[in-house]
Amino acid sequence: MHQFLNLKKSVRISTEFWDVTEKAGLFGVTVDGIGDGRHRVLADGHEFVNMSSYSYLGLDTHPGLVRAAADAVLAQGALNTSASRLRLHFGVLQDAEAALSDLFGVEAITVNSCALAAWTSLPLVASGLLTDGVPPLMVFDKNAHFCMNAMKPSVADEAEIITIRHNDVEALEDLCRRHRQVAYVADGVYSTGGVAPIAELLRLQERYGLFLFFDEAHSTSTVGRNGRGVVLETMDGFNDRTLIITSLNKGFGASGGAVFLGRRGAREWVDIALRSAAPLMWSQRINTAGLGAVLASAELHRSAELTGLQDRLQANIDLFDGLVDTAERGDGLPIRFVQVGSEAGTVELAQDLMRAGYFVSPIFFPVIGRGRAGLRVMLRSNMTAEEIEGFCGLVNSLGRRESAGAGAA
Amino acid sequence: MHQFLNLKKSVRISTEFWDVTEKAGLFGVTVDGIGDGRHRVLADGHEFVNMSSYSYLGLDTHPGLVRAAADAVLAQGALNTSASRLRLHFGVLQDAEAALSDLFGVEAITVNSCALAAWTSLPLVASGLLTDGVPPLMVFDKNAHFCMNAMKPSVADEAEIITIRHNDVEALEDLCRRHRQVAYVADGVYSTGGVAPIAELLRLQERYGLFLFFDEAHSTSTVGRNGRGVVLETMDGFNDRTLIITSLNKGFGASGGAVFLGRRGAREWVDIALRSAAPLMWSQRINTAGLGAVLASAELHRSAELTGLQDRLQANIDLFDGLVDTAERGDGLPIRFVQVGSEAGTVELAQDLMRAGYFVSPIFFPVIGRGRAGLRVMLRSNMTAEEIEGFCGLVNSLGRRESAGAGAA
Repeated sequence: MHQFLNLKKSVRISTEFWDVTEKAGLFGVTVDGIGDGRHRVLADGHEFVNMSSYSYLGLDTHPGLVRAAADAVLAQGALNTSASRLRLHFGVLQDAEAALSDLFGVEAITVNSCALAAWTSLPLVASGLLTDGVPPLMVFDKNAHFCMNAMKPSVADEAEIITIRHNDVEALEDLCRRHRQVAYVADGVYSTGGVAPIAELLRLQERYGLFLFFDEAHSTSTVGRNGRGVVLETMDGFNDRTLIITSLNKGFGASGGAVFLGRRGAREWVDIALRSAAPLMWSQRINTAGLGAVLASAELHRSAELTGLQDRLQANIDLFDGLVDTAERGDGLPIRFVQVGSEAGTVELAQDLMRAGYFVSPIFFPVIGRGRAGLRVMLRSNMTAEEIEGFCGLVNSLGRRESAGAGAA
Repeated sequence: MHQFLNLKKSVRISTEFWDVTEKAGLFGVTVDGIGDGRHRVLADGHEFVNMSSYSYLGLDTHPGLVRAAADAVLAQGALNTSASRLRLHFGVLQDAEAALSDLFGVEAITVNSCALAAWTSLPLVASGLLTDGVPPLMVFDKNAHFCMNAMKPSVADEAEIITIRHNDVEALEDLCRRHRQVAYVADGVYSTGGVAPIAELLRLQERYGLFLFFDEAHSTSTVGRNGRGVVLETMDGFNDRTLIITSLNKGFGASGGAVFLGRRGAREWVDIALRSAAPLMWSQRINTAGLGAVLASAELHRSAELTGLQDRLQANIDLFDGLVDTAERGDGLPIRFVQVGSEAGTVELAQDLMRAGYFVSPIFFPVIGRGRAGLRVMLRSNMTAEEIEGFCGLVNSLGRRESAGAGAA
């Protein structure tokens, strides 16, 4: 018991900080969207720009995608077939999965969210069904996303499990040497910043047959040809020793999540998944609104518009990097962690920024170690230079005050 | 290992039957919806009526709900806020949860599906956070839905766990006598037919403080005042020893799922859940299309239209019960299991029915024991008498042939 989960302890540890966050007005804010990552607080009309939005290309308010979502519901006259997809599904589901598969050169199955993609595929990998019947040693990166960590009890019921330090290729190689079959579970791009050592991991795959399981939720769309993300961009074509889960919300701008398993045209794994992976058997998948947006976004990902948005995002990242120093500076990715230090100071800073018209997520224990609290900034293609400069100016001036305060404490 | 899960074994056991089902053309059929539970196969234009649709009140194609879904996307101009709900959420999320809470006299939290409602709340109950800090003995009914069984590894990491025979009140009472804190996990209405002994369970709750956890996915909307389902209909007001998860798709006709925890106005549990239950913290919730439909459906549930639909459903159930004998006859619920016997015979019968214009799900091992295969019929308010009579006539004539064949085998 309590090998992986301990909700009572988690709540005890984090409850005070959530209280502080809530009192600061930064918890569960109900808003209206006014476009381009800007919002209006329903309670008092205060307007702000979201500096922690994961819609990296601004596709969440893209008029074409929004229209496509509404049109798909009306065209089908329903949100769902009211049956398991294993029985009946609409053409738009088939079309959306084909479009994703073609776009990324993989076989894609869609699910309701990236978390459900983890639920669908982690026990499947652990069972050994994708590795010649041999359950692999399941090696989790310590920083792998919570939605994958939350699956550990199920994974441990199918295979041996171990957690290693973040990006510890050496430890992983050692395990590869000592075990017949190893699977490594990691994020491609980490939700609090940073990237997996993908080239080195592919080298281990080449040498030892290492199975790679990546969460690309923060990478899809934002980087790579056609927005294929850091993993596919680094690989020389997809292979049958790799599985990717990702979000179709975040950068992609639609709804739901996806599992990429097998090269385009290799349906064996998809068939196994459909017949065995629990969430795929149940009633709900992405509704027709989400599927309409997936189709429109897949088309956009093939166009020059995608490249233009990626370029604007890179320009905004460069602008930010020139103004605020972070550990992630220069990595070409949109996530920046501005370390502040104390939890109280971080919340106070976020509160001041909100008053000045900038929402930013304060990040703290248990998401990150104690005393290393800070702000998770997520850059978007549809931020103006004025917004970024204004925000960075405030972070630098208010943040210095915090540092001084922390030093004096 | 393999205490709860064994995907390799599950696939080995069920693969041949899925092959048979697929060959029979009853697996993953891609269709267009043509209204009122009728579909057209995209591949060949064949039209059929779905006799296994869980849209018990026909709300999946209700023009008002479909329109509300599309309108909500357009009104908000986005499918999601691109932030965790713990940070930012749209007014339509707040409105939808308030409408559900008012409708059913509970505190309702929405999630992406009923399966995610199980993921959200089963570890929470097991942790003891809702039972004065004491982790209860978690007692699962053997027939509790797969989405709850799939959570057993996580539940077992928080509390002691045991599975008892279906509807075995005596065994449950014995456990209540011998344990300080017990929680019982069951369906209100079972997905293959039948109902929990709710009055007796409430008696155990009264006597021993038993915590009750119900999946009401197949019950919400179809029965009870305002469609509140069998559990709330039997209870004398909601209480703090009961938690309900349900679907907002199925009978309700929208998207997503919900957790009912606490009487309307008692927010303590909601606050605990929001700060601790993993799926609630992540990026995706019901998209604005689904939330628009939830709001419209909640309004419909307060109207005479709901009562009219429930009455028509009951008339259709009565019509069916007068024509085909099942174990469920007379229970007032829309799920009927027509036992056939052999798996091959069941698939053949389903195939013949499909040719004649009726889709019905063949149910077999591992969903149900070997040699007890049959058809899962789900009645709807928007079936015509002709459809029901035609279907029942074929089941009786073709089914007799199967029985004769089975006898001879």
